[in-house]
Amino acid sequence: MLFGALEAGGTKMVMATGNENGEIYEQVSIPTESPEVTIPRIIDYFKDKEITALGIGSFGPIDLDKNSDTYGYITSTPKLAWANYDLVGTIKKALQVPIGFDTDVNGSALGEATWGSTKGLPTSIYITIGTGVGVGVFQNGAPLHGMLHPEAGHVLLSRHPEDTFAGSCPYHPNCLESLAAGPAIEKRWGKKAIDLKDNTKVWELEAYYIAQALVGYILTLSPHRIVLGGGVMHQEQLFPLIRTQVKDLLNGYIKTPQIEDIDTYIVPAALKDNQGIMGCIQLAKLELR
Amino acid sequence: MLFGALEAGGTKMVMATGNENGEIYEQVSIPTESPEVTIPRIIDYFKDKEITALGIGSFGPIDLDKNSDTYGYITSTPKLAWANYDLVGTIKKALQVPIGFDTDVNGSALGEATWGSTKGLPTSIYITIGTGVGVGVFQNGAPLHGMLHPEAGHVLLSRHPEDTFAGSCPYHPNCLESLAAGPAIEKRWGKKAIDLKDNTKVWELEAYYIAQALVGYILTLSPHRIVLGGGVMHQEQLFPLIRTQVKDLLNGYIKTPQIEDIDTYIVPAALKDNQGIMGCIQLAKLELR
Repeated sequence: MLFGALEAGGTKMVMATGNENGEIYEQVSIPTESPEVTIPRIIDYFKDKEITALGIGSFGPIDLDKNSDTYGYITSTPKLAWANYDLVGTIKKALQVPIGFDTDVNGSALGEATWGSTKGLPTSIYITIGTGVGVGVFQNGAPLHGMLHPEAGHVLLSRHPEDTFAGSCPYHPNCLESLAAGPAIEKRWGKKAIDLKDNTKVWELEAYYIAQALVGYILTLSPHRIVLGGGVMHQEQLFPLIRTQVKDLLNGYIKTPQIEDIDTYIVPAALKDNQGIMGCIQLAKLELR
Repeated sequence: MLFGALEAGGTKMVMATGNENGEIYEQVSIPTESPEVTIPRIIDYFKDKEITALGIGSFGPIDLDKNSDTYGYITSTPKLAWANYDLVGTIKKALQVPIGFDTDVNGSALGEATWGSTKGLPTSIYITIGTGVGVGVFQNGAPLHGMLHPEAGHVLLSRHPEDTFAGSCPYHPNCLESLAAGPAIEKRWGKKAIDLKDNTKVWELEAYYIAQALVGYILTLSPHRIVLGGGVMHQEQLFPLIRTQVKDLLNGYIKTPQIEDIDTYIVPAALKDNQGIMGCIQLAKLELR
């Protein structure tokens, strides 16, 4: 059976076809321009592929409530050309196949939970730290929704007493994305993350913020494992720093075998940056259930 | 059909019988002493009642993993007489009925979701603020578990710059329970909450901390509604203060009809302090599915 996958990002659209085992046959990427330019190219790509279903993991916020009049829409995004755009409806009308739809990070959480480092676990979360911060939540076979969907890249943190950086999020001076996403690193230190690899202060401060957020997720969601992905997390020196600070902050309060063995509890993505597109294949599969 | 309900607290045990509609026929309360003293009294109460099933909402931490050797145990509680105690196993052996088991706050969340102020909503959370702080999470028909269960009373907060109180949690100087539970109020201000009703500074600071925690829960779990209960929340002047600060902290980032109408989003418990025991009735019912 052939499935289609669309990872709809704010800067690029990744399209792929693959099978039910998450094997990707073909993958192409186009820039995200306006819907008028980009959507016909997406439809064009998939239209003769004879896919059984399509999975879309999208930037957001998006409407995931199947009872809503605007189900399948990208809603209040600051990318104005895409605000209140009927992404699922438009593509479905053209392709006439079932479409599974979720946030990009819920897609990645699902990809890792199906084929990656959280496979077989009842609950897990996936956090991407790159140009923004997003959190996907997997629980008992499917991504978590709710009133909206998790927006946990914006959880509020305690600022480090020596950090005078104003923050890079227009909504929250002290949220995780504001203080720790790629643009925050670049603005605070005047260089890109990749050129700061040997500056230990950069990564200690980065771990200070990421660990605070992780402690909040652990206490609130109690996931069986946490996966960290995205461009910033390619700085692998962060992992031991984050693990140490998470243990320090929890301070022995949560006593589980998982926290005890924290090196296997807080881990990198296993799918080599294919967790998003593979998660879209799984979204397509789930839509056929 | 008759169901039994046991709300197992650190200071008292509340036992009741009721029907499938959550109507309580009889309710008694005994002090929590050692298991050797208290458990025989609990068994004695239920043994001739001919209940079909029992629901237990317990203080914790507890083991909720049905595949675990210590399922049904109270685990690492500081109440040492109850640490590593097989609560479910001991009672089940004596009563020979199915037993539903969860945290006390998950029980309350379930009670409100079944018969109270979150009835009919797919997801919701219940927060008790009293001698401690606990958070129960209801999702799609059942309480949320995970690696352990939510322990979100201990989420870490930013301290108010003028608050010099050391905190009352032995694990975390800056967690919600540490800064905002009943004992924190009493130690910080030198009086019990009930005697501070007219001191507006007390409630503004209290709302400052509770609102921070709520914003974290909203961004992470995205519940359809939030219920606040427990002794501290009997100070009803807190509700408008909390709602205002939640809106200020979110700063327009989450645009949903629920947040728009925040007076019906952050609400008191509807079951008049019976949410816990009624939730235990529902736990008993769910165990028969």
